[in-house]
Amino acid sequence: MGLELNTLGRHVLIELYGCPSEIIENNALIEQYMCEAADYSGATIVESVFHHFNPYGVSGAVIISESHLTIHTWPEYGFASVDVYTCGESVSPWKAGDYLAEKLKAKKVESFDFPRGTVEKIRQFANRELGKIQVKPEEYELEGAK
Amino acid sequence: MGLELNTLGRHVLIELYGCPSEIIENNALIEQYMCEAADYSGATIVESVFHHFNPYGVSGAVIISESHLTIHTWPEYGFASVDVYTCGESVSPWKAGDYLAEKLKAKKVESFDFPRGTVEKIRQFANRELGKIQVKPEEYELEGAK
Repeated sequence: MGLELNTLGRHVLIELYGCPSEIIENNALIEQYMCEAADYSGATIVESVFHHFNPYGVSGAVIISESHLTIHTWPEYGFASVDVYTCGESVSPWKAGDYLAEKLKAKKVESFDFPRGTVEKIRQFANRELGKIQVKPEEYELEGAK
Repeated sequence: MGLELNTLGRHVLIELYGCPSEIIENNALIEQYMCEAADYSGATIVESVFHHFNPYGVSGAVIISESHLTIHTWPEYGFASVDVYTCGESVSPWKAGDYLAEKLKAKKVESFDFPRGTVEKIRQFANRELGKIQVKPEEYELEGAK
């Protein structure tokens, strides 16, 4: 065990079908749920951006110190498409996904997991010998953090 | 053909190994390349957010009217992890990926494609009959756009 991971990150793609329109057309609520999902997964939010479409629908990203969450909603189709990409073992992308699936009251949830950043390939294509490979949160402090 | 798509979107996950550190530790350059990649793919940028880590590395998202691009860089490992998620047929996520792979001078590029938002499932779990299913850019104007 320890910090020598096989991959730097874990990325979960989540499709939420059959979400009530009154939930996913509420852009402020979607922003709130996205930030709550990040918190619930154990992540540290650093910045976020949400764009509201006319007449409805939102596209947004929450940058976390462990990578990101994104969402796109189509209230007219009851569909929301979510990504949770996390680095390190202290954060669970699945917790964030479960939280959003529950809050958006999806009738059907499909979730696909992908490892990101294979350590062996990082070593193979690096231009020098690398020591222990660690994810950012264990190794660095955030800019400006004391 | 026409606008009745089988899926709303196309999502490409791109792993860039063996990128020169002097390129991927240059945060301003990464932001520039991400926006250029969005342009090159035919997308319309609506907002973006980039967070610079200390001592190096950047996490960023570019929200496009057709969905998003994200990037995370690890200059210490020569690794950058990119996502390009686009909706509709007018934008090519692969063009954005190819552009970034070239600009970041990756020695090894791995790319994985995923369809997002299956139209048949959207219909199956909708609480009403849906007409023609179209992606946002064809149907709606951006908020504030004239």
